[in-house]
Amino acid sequence: MAPPTPRLVVPIDLRKNPWEQKHPLHNRWHPEILPVADVTTGEVFRVEMVDWTAGAIKDNDSSLDIKYIDLSTVHYLSGPIRVLDSDGVPAKPGDLLAVEICNLGPLPGDEWGYTATFDRENGGGFLTDHFPSATKAIWYFEGIYAHSPHIPGVRFPGLTHPGIIGTAPSMELLNIWNEREQDVEENGLKSFKLCEVLHSRPLANLPSTKGCHLGRIQQGTLEWEKIAREAARTIPGRENGGNCDIKNLSRGSKIYLPVFVDGANLSTGDMHFSQGDGEVSFCGAIEMSGFLELKCEIIRGGMKEYLTPMGPSPLHVNPIFEIGPVEPRFSEWLVFEGISVDESGRQHYLDASVAYKRAVLNAIDYLSKFGYSKEQIYLLLSCCPCEGRISGIVDAPNAVATLAIPTAIFDQDIRPKAHKVPTGPRLMRKPDVLKCTYDGNLPTTRNPSITM
Amino acid sequence: MAPPTPRLVVPIDLRKNPWEQKHPLHNRWHPEILPVADVTTGEVFRVEMVDWTAGAIKDNDSSLDIKYIDLSTVHYLSGPIRVLDSDGVPAKPGDLLAVEICNLGPLPGDEWGYTATFDRENGGGFLTDHFPSATKAIWYFEGIYAHSPHIPGVRFPGLTHPGIIGTAPSMELLNIWNEREQDVEENGLKSFKLCEVLHSRPLANLPSTKGCHLGRIQQGTLEWEKIAREAARTIPGRENGGNCDIKNLSRGSKIYLPVFVDGANLSTGDMHFSQGDGEVSFCGAIEMSGFLELKCEIIRGGMKEYLTPMGPSPLHVNPIFEIGPVEPRFSEWLVFEGISVDESGRQHYLDASVAYKRAVLNAIDYLSKFGYSKEQIYLLLSCCPCEGRISGIVDAPNAVATLAIPTAIFDQDIRPKAHKVPTGPRLMRKPDVLKCTYDGNLPTTRNPSITM
Amino acid sequence: MAPPTPRLVVPIDLRKNPWEQKHPLHNRWHPEILPVADVTTGEVFRVEMVDWTAGAIKDNDSSLDIKYIDLSTVHYLSGPIRVLDSDGVPAKPGDLLAVEICNLGPLPGDEWGYTATFDRENGGGFLTDHFPSATKAIWYFEGIYAHSPHIPGVRFPGLTHPGIIGTAPSMELLNIWNEREQDVEENGLKSFKLCEVLHSRPLANLPSTKGCHLGRIQQGTLEWEKIAREAARTIPGRENGGNCDIKNLSRGSKIYLPVFVDGANLSTGDMHFSQGDGEVSFCGAIEMSGFLELKCEIIRGGMKEYLTPMGPSPLHVNPIFEIGPVEPRFSEWLVFEGISVDESGRQHYLDASVAYKRAVLNAIDYLSKFGYSKEQIYLLLSCCPCEGRISGIVDAPNAVATLAIPTAIFDQDIRPKAHKVPTGPRLMRKPDVLKCTYDGNLPTTRNPSITM
Amino acid sequence: MAPPTPRLVVPIDLRKNPWEQKHPLHNRWHPEILPVADVTTGEVFRVEMVDWTAGAIKDNDSSLDIKYIDLSTVHYLSGPIRVLDSDGVPAKPGDLLAVEICNLGPLPGDEWGYTATFDRENGGGFLTDHFPSATKAIWYFEGIYAHSPHIPGVRFPGLTHPGIIGTAPSMELLNIWNEREQDVEENGLKSFKLCEVLHSRPLANLPSTKGCHLGRIQQGTLEWEKIAREAARTIPGRENGGNCDIKNLSRGSKIYLPVFVDGANLSTGDMHFSQGDGEVSFCGAIEMSGFLELKCEIIRGGMKEYLTPMGPSPLHVNPIFEIGPVEPRFSEWLVFEGISVDESGRQHYLDASVAYKRAVLNAIDYLSKFGYSKEQIYLLLSCCPCEGRISGIVDAPNAVATLAIPTAIFDQDIRPKAHKVPTGPRLMRKPDVLKCTYDGNLPTTRNPSITM
Repeated sequence: MAPPTPRLVVPIDLRKNPWEQKHPLHNRWHPEILPVADVTTGEVFRVEMVDWTAGAIKDNDSSLDIKYIDLSTVHYLSGPIRVLDSDGVPAKPGDLLAVEICNLGPLPGDEWGYTATFDRENGGGFLTDHFPSATKAIWYFEGIYAHSPHIPGVRFPGLTHPGIIGTAPSMELLNIWNEREQDVEENGLKSFKLCEVLHSRPLANLPSTKGCHLGRIQQGTLEWEKIAREAARTIPGRENGGNCDIKNLSRGSKIYLPVFVDGANLSTGDMHFSQGDGEVSFCGAIEMSGFLELKCEIIRGGMKEYLTPMGPSPLHVNPIFEIGPVEPRFSEWLVFEGISVDESGRQHYLDASVAYKRAVLNAIDYLSKFGYSKEQIYLLLSCCPCEGRISGIVDAPNAVATLAIPTAIFDQDIRPKAHKVPTGPRLMRKPDVLKCTYDGNLPTTRNPSITM
Repeated sequence: MAPPTPRLVVPIDLRKNPWEQKHPLHNRWHPEILPVADVTTGEVFRVEMVDWTAGAIKDNDSSLDIKYIDLSTVHYLSGPIRVLDSDGVPAKPGDLLAVEICNLGPLPGDEWGYTATFDRENGGGFLTDHFPSATKAIWYFEGIYAHSPHIPGVRFPGLTHPGIIGTAPSMELLNIWNEREQDVEENGLKSFKLCEVLHSRPLANLPSTKGCHLGRIQQGTLEWEKIAREAARTIPGRENGGNCDIKNLSRGSKIYLPVFVDGANLSTGDMHFSQGDGEVSFCGAIEMSGFLELKCEIIRGGMKEYLTPMGPSPLHVNPIFEIGPVEPRFSEWLVFEGISVDESGRQHYLDASVAYKRAVLNAIDYLSKFGYSKEQIYLLLSCCPCEGRISGIVDAPNAVATLAIPTAIFDQDIRPKAHKVPTGPRLMRKPDVLKCTYDGNLPTTRNPSITM
Repeated sequence: MAPPTPRLVVPIDLRKNPWEQKHPLHNRWHPEILPVADVTTGEVFRVEMVDWTAGAIKDNDSSLDIKYIDLSTVHYLSGPIRVLDSDGVPAKPGDLLAVEICNLGPLPGDEWGYTATFDRENGGGFLTDHFPSATKAIWYFEGIYAHSPHIPGVRFPGLTHPGIIGTAPSMELLNIWNEREQDVEENGLKSFKLCEVLHSRPLANLPSTKGCHLGRIQQGTLEWEKIAREAARTIPGRENGGNCDIKNLSRGSKIYLPVFVDGANLSTGDMHFSQGDGEVSFCGAIEMSGFLELKCEIIRGGMKEYLTPMGPSPLHVNPIFEIGPVEPRFSEWLVFEGISVDESGRQHYLDASVAYKRAVLNAIDYLSKFGYSKEQIYLLLSCCPCEGRISGIVDAPNAVATLAIPTAIFDQDIRPKAHKVPTGPRLMRKPDVLKCTYDGNLPTTRNPSITM
Repeated sequence: MAPPTPRLVVPIDLRKNPWEQKHPLHNRWHPEILPVADVTTGEVFRVEMVDWTAGAIKDNDSSLDIKYIDLSTVHYLSGPIRVLDSDGVPAKPGDLLAVEICNLGPLPGDEWGYTATFDRENGGGFLTDHFPSATKAIWYFEGIYAHSPHIPGVRFPGLTHPGIIGTAPSMELLNIWNEREQDVEENGLKSFKLCEVLHSRPLANLPSTKGCHLGRIQQGTLEWEKIAREAARTIPGRENGGNCDIKNLSRGSKIYLPVFVDGANLSTGDMHFSQGDGEVSFCGAIEMSGFLELKCEIIRGGMKEYLTPMGPSPLHVNPIFEIGPVEPRFSEWLVFEGISVDESGRQHYLDASVAYKRAVLNAIDYLSKFGYSKEQIYLLLSCCPCEGRISGIVDAPNAVATLAIPTAIFDQDIRPKAHKVPTGPRLMRKPDVLKCTYDGNLPTTRNPSITM
C-alpha cells in the first residue's frame, strides 16, 4: 500500500534560469555530463522541463524574440537520470532501456505555448525559401484543446509528447556524430542536391562552446571547456533517440532506447503540446514547458537481441517505439499530395523530402483560400495533428508524399464543393500571426504561377 | 425506382489478352487515346481491370516470371472513360473531377494476388542494392483477409485500393513531363545524390514504342507510331494523379482530379488488395485484378478555384483526396525509426528517402529475428497495412522517418521483452518466398555490421 | 495452388419462390430439418439468401405490403449446412462451431433494401404505442453507402451483417423453448410490467403450421405436420444464436456457436445492410437479400470448455463473438439519455428497456427539429449505425440508457448551438416515409407534453 | 495575454471532513442549497472533489469498510456553482447549460482508487443475489493506466469521467421526483417483476435527514431540517443529469444540462478513473477523488429549443451529450450475449435488464476459466472499459444484450481456441479480492447448472 504518487526527480522553477535550477539543465549530449538523479526500474517518477528555449519566447504581441533568438542555447534538457534495476545495478552499455510515458502535460500554471518560424538567416524552416520572415503564434490550452488568437477558427486536441528523449552517447558514438556532421558541413553543399533546394539553412550544427550548458559542470573550468568542445548539439535526432520529434510518443507510449553509458543517463525536454508530422516550421510544434511521468525497465543485453546495427559500427542503431492507445481519433481527413518535382518544374529522383515540400505547399495554398494568410496555415500545419506520409518511394522518378489534415479541427467545412468556396466577400481570419520583416538578402522562392 | 445496380462500362475477360478485350486496354498516358465509354455525373458505374501485368505473373511455384518480366508493357489500364454532366456536357479543361470510390474488390473467381521484387537489372526495388534477386510471394484472399503460403504466420485485412487513377494529360502537360524526365535521365546521375544511393534503378522511363498499347488505335499505324513516341509511361505518379499508390484510397474515398482534356478521360488500373506506405519492394502491393464502382461529379472551374499551381505553368497541380470511413482499425503499433545516415555511416542532409530506407532496413532486421527470412519481411512490409511517416524534416542534418507496423497482423507477440526473444531453438517460418538467383554484376550494399 | 474462390453451397434465384430454390428454404428451427449441403472446416464457402420476407416487400411507392404482411412466414433461412472436419467427422453436440465471416454483401443486381414499421395490430415495433401506422422507407446502395429517397439528407456506410446465424436445436432444447415461451404467452400479461408498457405487441410467437416451410420436407405430409407443430419460430434470438440482430457481426467477425445436433446444421438469413442497436422499428434494419462467405472451425468439446450454462440444463448457454476490424469509424457522436421513467411520469425499477425507450423518444423529438417527420427519424434510428448502451443499471430506481448517433451521417450540423436551430423558415425534408393509415382501435401513447 | 490557468473555484483538502472544507460539500439535490462560487461563461475553472464516500473507503487490506459503510451519506458533491454570462446575468430556468470537460484526473498525491460490491443487506449490486458478500479491490494509477494488486494480469487506460454532473432541481421538479420514487418504494414489489429478480436491493432511496449534508446550511437548524426532509438523494440519475454514470463523459466531452433554477447551480462529484457500461458492482467504477476543468456556455431558451419533454410536465426532460475525441482505442473485442431468460430458465418479455444480467453472468463464468475467481471478474467488468449494448429490443419475447470486452486489457490471450484453454495446471491469479463473510439470511441465486 505504498504511496503511488510519482516521485519528482527533476523539479523546475519557471522563475529561475536553467543554470539556477535545483538540478541545472544541460543543452548538449556528452557522456560526462553528470546524472542529477537515480531512478529504479518499475518506479513511476516525474521530470519537469522548461520549454526548449527556457523562456526566451514570450506570451506577448511581438515576434522580435523569435527573430533574434540565440539558437546556440537550445534545447535545454532535464537530466541526465541514471537508471538502476531493483538490485541497484545500473543499466549497462548494450542494454535496452524501455521507457513508458505514463503521463505528461504542461506545467501547472503555465498552460500556453507558441509556434514559430525563424528568420531565414537565423535558422529558417522547411519552407524558409518561401517564408523568410520570423513569425509567431501563441496558443492557449483549455485542457486537451489548444486554440490561438493568431489563427482563429481552429481548435484541436493535443497529441502531447516530448520532442526529445534520449540516452547519453559514449565517447565512441559522439566521435562518430562529430565526424559525419563535420563532413556534411564541409562537403554538403557540393554533394547534396537537397542543400540547394533548402539552400539557406545551416547544414549542421557542430559543437560550440557558445551557449553551452553542462549541468553541474562549472562554465569556464577546464573540464567544461573540454566537454563543450566535444559535446554534440541537440538539434538532430540520432542513434540515442534525441530530437526525434515523433508526434505519437504520447500517453501510454513506450520507447526502447539503446544504452551507451553506465546508468543510461536519460535526458528529456522540448515538450510539445501538439505537432504535425515533419514539424515543418522548425520551431514548429506548440512549444511549451511541461512534465513527464515515466517508468523504466532494463532489458539486459537488449541492443544485441533486438537492434541490428545498420552502419560500420555496432553503435549505428535506432530506437524502437510503441504507440499508446489514447490518441485523438479523427474520422475525416483531407489529403494533399506532392511529387518530387520542385517549384521550378525540375524533376528530382525519388526524393521524398522534395515531394513532401510540395505537398505542404499545396496544402498551404488550398487552405489559405478559406480566409487565412499563408503564414497562418504554415504555422498551423506545423503544429496541428496532421499526418505526413511517404506514399510511394519506388515509382521512378517521382516519390509521392501526402499530408493528411483532419477536417474536424476547422470551424468551417474545408472540403471542395461544387459551389465556389468563398461565397460572398472572402472572410479574412483576423488577427494574423505576429510577423517580423525579413531584412536579409537571400533570394526567395517565388512560385512562378502565383500572380499577386 | 430505377435499378441501382452499377452499370458495367468496362468488362474484363481474364482469358483474353489486353488487346482482345471488348474495350482494348492501354498502358500509356496520351490525350489522343480514345475514350471507350461515357458516364454521367451521379451514376454509379463499374470498371473491371486486369492486374498491372495483365496476367504475366502466375499463381505457381516459380519466380522466373518476375525475373524476366518485360516492364515496357505495364501498367495495363481500363478506360479512358469520358465524363459528362446531366445535360450531356463533358468535363472541360480547368474543371475538377470528383471521383468517389463506392466499392471495389478482386474480380470474382480470381481471388489471389502476388507481391514481388524485381531483379536488380530489371527494375529492382527500394532496397535493390541489399536484395538484388527477384522474389515472389503469392497471397490468397479470404474475404477481407489475405494470407500467404510463402510468409506464414501473418494475416491481415486488406485496405484495397487502385494504385492508378488518373485523367488524361493535355499535349502541353505531356510535353512538360517528357522534358523534365528526359532531363533527369540525362543529368540525374551527376546531379542527384539519391541516384547514387539507389544507383542501379532506372532514373526515368521515357516513352517507348516497345510494349506500347493504345486501346483501339491499331498498332503499327502512323497514328499509333506518333502517339507511342510521345505517350508517357505510367510508372510515376504525376499531375494527373496516375500511379500515386496511396494506400488509403479505399471504399468511400473521394479523389479530386484536375481535368486537362475534354471529357476528363479517366483511366484506372493497378488494383492492390493491400499495400504498405511506400510500396517498397516496387512490385510491392498485393497485386491483383479487380473492379471499381465509381461515381463522378464535375466541379466546374474547380482547378482554378481549388488547386494552386506550384511550378512554371498552370498545369503544375496535384490531386486532392478524402479518406473513407471503413479502413481497418489497429490499436497497437510497433514503430521503427530511421535517420538520414546511410549504411556506410555517411550523413545526408534532411533526406527523408534515406531516412525511410534506414527505417525499413531496421524493421526488416528486427522482424527477421522472429523466425523469418529478410526477404519475407521485405515483401511483407511492402504490402501489409504499415504506415510510413515523415516525422521530422527540419532538424538538420537529420530527417527522421518512421515505419509503424500493426502488431495484430502477426500470430506471435513481436514486441521487445525482458526475456530473450527466440527462446529455445529459433523457429524458421517455412516455406520461404520464391527466389531466383541474381546473375548480374552490380555491387550489393552490405551492412558492415552484419556478420553472416 | 488450388482455386481460392469460395464454393457456392446455397445459390439463390431471386425470381423463384423460397420453396422453388435449388435448396428450398426453411423458416423454423427444428433438428429434423434436413441439411442441404456439407462444408469442411477451413474451406471458405458462399451462402446466398433472400431478404427475410423473400420478396414480399417491394421497391415501390406504397407501404400496403408492410401493413398486410403475413408474419407467419418469416424469416426465410438458407441451410441448414452440415459442418465436417478435415477427416469427414461431423461437428458433435458439445462442440463449439467457430464461424468466421470472411465477406458479405447484397446480392449482385439487387442493391437495395427497406426499413419499416408494422401496423400495431400486425407486429408493431418498439414504439408502436406512439407510432401505430405501417411505414416504409426504401434505401439504395452506392457501394458501402446507403441513402433513401424517403429520408433525405442522410447517407451512411453500412455495417453489413446477418441478422440471423444459428445452429439447429436438439429436441431437448426445442422443448425448453416451447415451454418457456408458452408460459410467457399465457401468463406474461399479468406477470410482467413491460408487457403493459408495450401492450399491443405479441408476447411470443409459438409454433404454427400456418406459413411454415421446412426445406425439402414436403408440405402436408405427416412428417411435415409433426415438425411444423413443434418447430420454433425464428423471431427471437435464443441459445443457438438465431435472430440476435447484433449489428457488429460484420466482415472479419467470428461467432462461436454451441452445437446441439450432429453436423451443427448452420442456418443463416435476415441480411442487414445496416442496423442500429436495438433495431427499434422491428422491420428495422435495412433489410435486403445478400450473400455470406464463411469459414468454419470445430472446437471439439468447446461447449464444456468455454460456455457455462446459466439455467437449469447444460443447454442454457449463449454464443460468444469477436468483432471484426473494419467497422466504419466515426469520431463525433451526439448522445441521448433515457431513464426508467415512462411517458406518464411513472417510475420503473432499474428497467433498461423503459430507459432505452425514453432515450429513443428523446432522440426522435430532438432530431425532428431539423426538418424531419418523427416517422423519418424513427426509421432512421432503427437502421443507421447508432449505438444503444446500458450506461447505469445499479442506481436504484433509475436505469440509465443512452443512444449515441454519429453526427457525420447528416448533411447538416445537428449539434445544439447558442443560436436557434431552425434559422429562418423551417426546412421540411421531403418526401416523407411511405405511410398507411392506422385503422385499429388500440390506444396510442400520447406524450402529455406535446401540443400539436 | 491573460493568464490561462484554470481558476480553482472549489478546492479540496483531503485531510479535512466534507463539512470542514473551504466550501462545505453537499450530498443531496435541493434548490435551496447555496452556491459556493460564481463562474462566467467562457472561463475555464477547476473544481476539486472527494471520492463519493469522502474517504470512508481506505487503501488497506480489509473490506470491512465496504461491508459496514453508511450509504446515507453519499455522494459528496462539490458546488453548487452559479453560472453567469459575460454581462453578469445568471443562467435562467429554461436555458440549456453547455458544460465542456476540458480536463480531469485524480487529485495530485492521491493517485489510487477502489472498486467494490456492497453486502447484500447494505446496498448490494447488480448481481447481489449471486454475490452477496462485500468485496473490494484497490487500484493504483500509473498515468493513464490502472492496475490492481487484487486482480493481477490486467491493466488498462482509464476513460476517466465524473459519475455525477447535474444542475439543481426546482421545487416543482423535486416534488415530482419524491412522489414518483415514493410510489415505487411503496408499490414496486408488487408491480414490477424486476424487483423480484433483483429482490434484495433497495427500491428507492427517499429523502432522509440521516447523513444529510447541505453545504453551508447549518445542521440542526430549522432551515436544515426542512430542506433535509425534502432534498433528493443522489443515487439515481434524473432529469437534471446527476448520477448518470455515463463512462464516455471524458476529456473533450460536452454536456447540455437543462437549467431549473437561477444560476443553474451546477454540482459535480463521484469521480471515476474508469467504469464499464452499467457499473454493475454498484460501487463499481474505480472510485477516486479528483478534479475537473470545465467551461460553460449558456444557450438561452435552449430547453424549449432543443429538449422535448417526455412526460406530464415541461420538466420531464433529459440532458444531451457529445463524446470527446480522446477515448482509448481498442480494435479487438470479445463479446458476450445474454437473452431475457433468467437463471431459473424463466422467460421474460423483452427485458433488457434481465438480458444484460445474463450477458454479465456469461462473461464472468467465461473469464474465470482463465485463472480468476468470479469475484475478481465481477469487479473487473464493473470498472474496465467494457461496452454494454442493447442489441435487439424487438424480437419478442427475447431482448438481446451484449457485453463487449477489449481483449488488450489482459496479459494473456482470452479468445476461445481449438486447444483446451487451461493447458497444464490451472494458474490461479493470486491474490484475490478482499472479501467479507455474508452473514445475512437472504437467499442466494444459485445457477442450477454449476456443480462446485
